[in-house]
Amino acid sequence: MLVLITYDVKTTTSAGQRRLRRVSKLCQNYGQRVQNSVFECNVDAAQFASLKIQLADIIDQKEDSLRFYQLGNNYKNKVEHIGVKESIDMEGPLII
Amino acid sequence: MLVLITYDVKTTTSAGQRRLRRVSKLCQNYGQRVQNSVFECNVDAAQFASLKIQLADIIDQKEDSLRFYQLGNNYKNKVEHIGVKESIDMEGPLII
Repeated sequence: MLVLITYDVKTTTSAGQRRLRRVSKLCQNYGQRVQNSVFECNVDAAQFASLKIQLADIIDQKEDSLRFYQLGNNYKNKVEHIGVKESIDMEGPLII
Repeated sequence: MLVLITYDVKTTTSAGQRRLRRVSKLCQNYGQRVQNSVFECNVDAAQFASLKIQLADIIDQKEDSLRFYQLGNNYKNKVEHIGVKESIDMEGPLII
């Protein structure tokens, strides 16, 4: 299923910048960045549970926030993009 | 239906900062900010169409981007939040 992850990490300190990098790096293991603080991850239920635990552990829950939106499997007609950086279809053919 | 709107606006110029303010202000008319560049808007199909046209008109499509995720009506169990600034339930009772 597609899970959308959005995050706000307070980066006014170097610790915050480090948290941001760690959140971003972890999300990259599960999906693709579609905007600055927005990832789309293709995960099964077990991966989703694991990802949530790991992300919750990285952020400072008094400063930062994470949101998870379960878009399900039939998501392609539910997402629209306008402007730069259209995302890649992860399930489409890879053309090199 | 709930529509999630995420945006990246390039704010390295004053024109960009102005675009960001305009996008944010317009989204506020339709819903609530849940993170820095993430809004949840409760709209019908006509409002959604109108909002998209207005937002597409504000941004610089060579610099910025908008994404729209239609979460439908049965969205409450599809959204999870961790950390600061839990969103308000727009359809819940208003307690003053």
